[in-house]
Amino acid sequence: MSSSSSAPPQQQVKKDAVPFQRAHLEGLCQKRFFYTQAFEIYGGVAGLYDYGPMGAALQANIITQWRNHFILEEEMLELDTTIMTLADVLKTSGHVDKFADFMCKDTKNGEIFRADHLVEGVLEARIQGHNMALAQESSAASSVTAADATTEKDDKKRKKKVKAVAVKLDQSVLDEYNHVLAQIDNYTGPELGDLIKKYDIRAPESGNPVSDPVEFNLMFDTNIGPTGHIKGYLRPETAQGHFVNFARLLEFNNGRVPFASAHIGKSFRNEISPRAGLLRVREFTMAEIEHYVDPLEKDHEKFADVADLVLAFLPKGTQEAGKTDLLHQSIGEAVKSGMVDNQTLGYFLGRIHLFLIKIGIDPKRLRFRQHMGNEMAHYASDCWDAEIHTSYGWIECVGCADRSAYDLTVHSKRTKRDLVVQKSLKEPNIYDKLVPELDMKKIGPALKKQAKPVEEAILALDQPALERMQSELKNGKTSISPSGATEPVELTGDLLKIELKTIKETIREFTPNVIEPSFGIGRIFYSLLEHSFWVRPEDNAAASTAAATPDKALTFRGVLSLPPLVAPVKVLILPISSSAELSPIVKEVSRKLRSANVAVRVDDSSATIGKRYSRNDELGTPFACTIDFATKAKGTLTLRERDTTAQRIGSIDEVVSVITDLCENRIDWAGACARLPEYSGEQAVN
Amino acid sequence: MSSSSSAPPQQQVKKDAVPFQRAHLEGLCQKRFFYTQAFEIYGGVAGLYDYGPMGAALQANIITQWRNHFILEEEMLELDTTIMTLADVLKTSGHVDKFADFMCKDTKNGEIFRADHLVEGVLEARIQGHNMALAQESSAASSVTAADATTEKDDKKRKKKVKAVAVKLDQSVLDEYNHVLAQIDNYTGPELGDLIKKYDIRAPESGNPVSDPVEFNLMFDTNIGPTGHIKGYLRPETAQGHFVNFARLLEFNNGRVPFASAHIGKSFRNEISPRAGLLRVREFTMAEIEHYVDPLEKDHEKFADVADLVLAFLPKGTQEAGKTDLLHQSIGEAVKSGMVDNQTLGYFLGRIHLFLIKIGIDPKRLRFRQHMGNEMAHYASDCWDAEIHTSYGWIECVGCADRSAYDLTVHSKRTKRDLVVQKSLKEPNIYDKLVPELDMKKIGPALKKQAKPVEEAILALDQPALERMQSELKNGKTSISPSGATEPVELTGDLLKIELKTIKETIREFTPNVIEPSFGIGRIFYSLLEHSFWVRPEDNAAASTAAATPDKALTFRGVLSLPPLVAPVKVLILPISSSAELSPIVKEVSRKLRSANVAVRVDDSSATIGKRYSRNDELGTPFACTIDFATKAKGTLTLRERDTTAQRIGSIDEVVSVITDLCENRIDWAGACARLPEYSGEQAVN
Repeated sequence: MSSSSSAPPQQQVKKDAVPFQRAHLEGLCQKRFFYTQAFEIYGGVAGLYDYGPMGAALQANIITQWRNHFILEEEMLELDTTIMTLADVLKTSGHVDKFADFMCKDTKNGEIFRADHLVEGVLEARIQGHNMALAQESSAASSVTAADATTEKDDKKRKKKVKAVAVKLDQSVLDEYNHVLAQIDNYTGPELGDLIKKYDIRAPESGNPVSDPVEFNLMFDTNIGPTGHIKGYLRPETAQGHFVNFARLLEFNNGRVPFASAHIGKSFRNEISPRAGLLRVREFTMAEIEHYVDPLEKDHEKFADVADLVLAFLPKGTQEAGKTDLLHQSIGEAVKSGMVDNQTLGYFLGRIHLFLIKIGIDPKRLRFRQHMGNEMAHYASDCWDAEIHTSYGWIECVGCADRSAYDLTVHSKRTKRDLVVQKSLKEPNIYDKLVPELDMKKIGPALKKQAKPVEEAILALDQPALERMQSELKNGKTSISPSGATEPVELTGDLLKIELKTIKETIREFTPNVIEPSFGIGRIFYSLLEHSFWVRPEDNAAASTAAATPDKALTFRGVLSLPPLVAPVKVLILPISSSAELSPIVKEVSRKLRSANVAVRVDDSSATIGKRYSRNDELGTPFACTIDFATKAKGTLTLRERDTTAQRIGSIDEVVSVITDLCENRIDWAGACARLPEYSGEQAVN
Repeated sequence: MSSSSSAPPQQQVKKDAVPFQRAHLEGLCQKRFFYTQAFEIYGGVAGLYDYGPMGAALQANIITQWRNHFILEEEMLELDTTIMTLADVLKTSGHVDKFADFMCKDTKNGEIFRADHLVEGVLEARIQGHNMALAQESSAASSVTAADATTEKDDKKRKKKVKAVAVKLDQSVLDEYNHVLAQIDNYTGPELGDLIKKYDIRAPESGNPVSDPVEFNLMFDTNIGPTGHIKGYLRPETAQGHFVNFARLLEFNNGRVPFASAHIGKSFRNEISPRAGLLRVREFTMAEIEHYVDPLEKDHEKFADVADLVLAFLPKGTQEAGKTDLLHQSIGEAVKSGMVDNQTLGYFLGRIHLFLIKIGIDPKRLRFRQHMGNEMAHYASDCWDAEIHTSYGWIECVGCADRSAYDLTVHSKRTKRDLVVQKSLKEPNIYDKLVPELDMKKIGPALKKQAKPVEEAILALDQPALERMQSELKNGKTSISPSGATEPVELTGDLLKIELKTIKETIREFTPNVIEPSFGIGRIFYSLLEHSFWVRPEDNAAASTAAATPDKALTFRGVLSLPPLVAPVKVLILPISSSAELSPIVKEVSRKLRSANVAVRVDDSSATIGKRYSRNDELGTPFACTIDFATKAKGTLTLRERDTTAQRIGSIDEVVSVITDLCENRIDWAGACARLPEYSGEQAVN
């Protein structure tokens, strides 16, 4: 963004005059086919969504920006690995045993609930009921209705809406509920079962008791090939596809770390009960980075680039105390104090922040929440989620975890393949070490079948154990219990020698640690739509007048203030009439913009200019060029900006050049205004 | 490509001096991590492949070109629909019942074969055995060994290699075998069973008899959600995702046809026994277009653009006669003669041809084969495959079918949703028609339960039937047999009137026909690698000398002559030494090329210049810039072309500008040579 220009135009337009209502946005997304429920004409399937032309283009643009911001900027190695995954790989990674949510069944009608969502929903409804009761008490003094008071609470829930009943709670109970809700992600299945019993939580609609929580694995399973012997799962993340290819990636990178692999692709989770639109789905596009580092060198060479950036942090301590206060701090300080574990993790938090802002996420609605103890995988050393605030509450959109050496270690162990990095030591490492030596010629005849197990047992001994044996051998003999043996095997000095030797290491071998930024593209996509959507007060007034219409939501005209960088179409070209005289100019302007890689759309329908503008405001098209008879007579073109609806004028080439700079983020609207005079309406007439 | 320049440099280099060997290419692809078998460290799974950094980039570039060539050029509506597909949708489309291959089992050891591949493999091996026997007879006179004679035959098979035994066949048997092989794709399962019995075809390795062919559905199945009641399949094609969204797409396109939707994404087929590397896989990237047209207007407005293009056709008649001769004809003639069903189909055949040539497929190894009767879906009116010749024989890489109105009709019928287009008629359609009118007040009491079935039966009558009833009514009464009735129901003139009325239609309603070009990106990717790969004679000689090396294939240095448009990296930047003086120039040149959107790679390893060149020849990098002390002293840069290894020289800015034009296909190497003088080696020294 050019630094020469003043505040971006977004800030000059009051976008919050009409309160956000999710139904308006959802209406727009359906009407303009951004996305829709999959198999809609078959009644749809929960958690599956199709993207239409506008949604597919917006998603593709977000992905292109992601590729530029991460893969190209950091020279990452891109992969495209299979979705279908061998069961054995996911057994090793722990997904077969642990990638599960807890579910409860209504004991009478069989309805299924996700256990944590059930507890959360019921407790929130009770708190809401308490507030309703308070509101009723003071209803004479206040005009706030119970329904108004609860709207925001309702919206926040990511699960099935639970109906609130006006019942007052004791302050101690209220405090307890709030404490549980603040750490709802921190409970194990049995703990959720205890909460269900303790608070007598029942199926919301039927009022029936629910079963104890049981685990449900979230992976879709199938068989590979016709034999039925090879089991496969649809990957729940792309990460394992990186790890199983680590040896080839390392070789491609000439054996050196740090480096990163990146993968953009579909993953699958068989959610128990998906709701909340695009935020909890069964099939989704992820973009994942696995950054491999030396565990002893987690500093990042470009850390200085982000060290001064101030982020909104929600550390684990705050949450464990049942609070949600944000800490605004620079990344440099956060790493220095140890709150963020290391520079590399901090660097990526900064890069994630910059990416999200660049594509249009509101920085005031973005926070970084640290995982609490139970929430984090046992092997992870630190984990932060970038959460974006939407009408559903704070939503995890990017996870950024230090996975330590866990994944590479387990795959290496299981496959008996080295997944390590060798690094030349600047100074050789010289030290003394006790080394056991077995006389293999004698040991075979002496120990027979036990020779091999004894050898393995001795090689596995640590230094203190070897020291003990060495001193025993000085007294003539020692003994060892190999695995499977019923009693110790005796060894004498002619079979085993233990001597102190000087070791000189010139190479250090280690399993790299992995820092993993993992992006849910669909969640970012939806959050961006919410942050971009608003309604012009005049359109709201018109819609209210027309409120008698059956489907009120659809009568709303919204605006999607998508940044030019990601907007599906950048420029709308509007011939003022369908006159054949204007058609060659329309083609010329389109061609000029297209050859500058600017996506254009011609709207030559018979609708009024105003209707065509507002239709394209709903598509998020940031700019519009009107082609009229002045264009023909004088070669001028008007340029309209979506948010302000301000219009400027210039020659075709001037306007094309300004648009190109706007779309490539070289100038903003203020910069454009500095280059093109205001359109008064007179330029076209004269 | 600029028309000013002479023949492209590819034709100036003799690339076929060293005969193609697949093992060399496969060695290169592994070594340079273009792709590898998925879960390799776990032993791999047949039919699943991962793309490494070079493969992922090449694939992404092919897809970008596809998007430009089809979606942007034709303003198609792009979709991104789910892979997970509701079973009901695929039941309607016919996939649940019919998307199957036939398999046979070894009756003793249980090994599974795809039935057509088994027949093909065994008969080909017998023909090969016959040729071996002939070769043995004449071995005194000829130096051709049996092994040599059969190499090509072996390579051609897309299935498990069957060992040939030297046995002569009667000419009549030989003719029969060849006749069967020419139409191997044309047999049903029972017909394959008959062939197996007739020719006593057995499991090749064990010699055991095989079972009758049974159907195996090729879709991966799973359950959606925790209940087990919602069945899903991984989509076997993206097409159904377009069709179920047809109503929204049509609305987005303001209700008008023709228009096309397009979708790039993964699809899945659970192949019985996948072999042949990337050509027969279980998970693959497809790019599919569904072009919706008025069935009465299958002409295409841009047909003239391709009418003169000459393609190599293999029509169905030729194949049914057991032959494979190609017909070289212009698309205009092919459509005029009716061989290609309509202009729209012909237009897409031309566009497919142009796309494949543009990304680097050898036009001499490309043909268009028409489907034979049994091969084509029953609803299709015509279907052509673009087949590319590789070491595996001719491979179907793009299908181009006229699917008629089949899909939209079946989905509409099943969901009771209109999937039709309404078109205003230029002239209203005015005609007379017999219209039945039932007196509903009387018919209820008179017919009771039968009133409804009678009404339905009458409304379903055609004009001749109505005419008969009308004349019967003139004689007092008529009768009708509604469905489910045991005997006809009598109707008199007071219940039913049939009169001739004048109808004026202003709108025609129809289900559009669908032309579907469907691209297998992985097959195109692999074919392109084969067409691009060659070995320089000098490298071949060096490798032959080193033939004692254990893994001979890997010692080969190959070249991948990928066009700049799709090459993963466009320019290699080579500092001639690791001197710190050169480092700022390396950064400057990289930055200049990157900001012109040219993908560069710096190789500052300590390997010799020659080794670094040849490493990048294997990555398909078309250009290299050497940065030496002359660059520092005089600001000159040398530019090397991969295929010819010719070098030119110019100032940094001149070279960057030439490279940009080369990469955007504005000039070819001859054009570059016209702008930059030859590098003699002296410019750097002086």
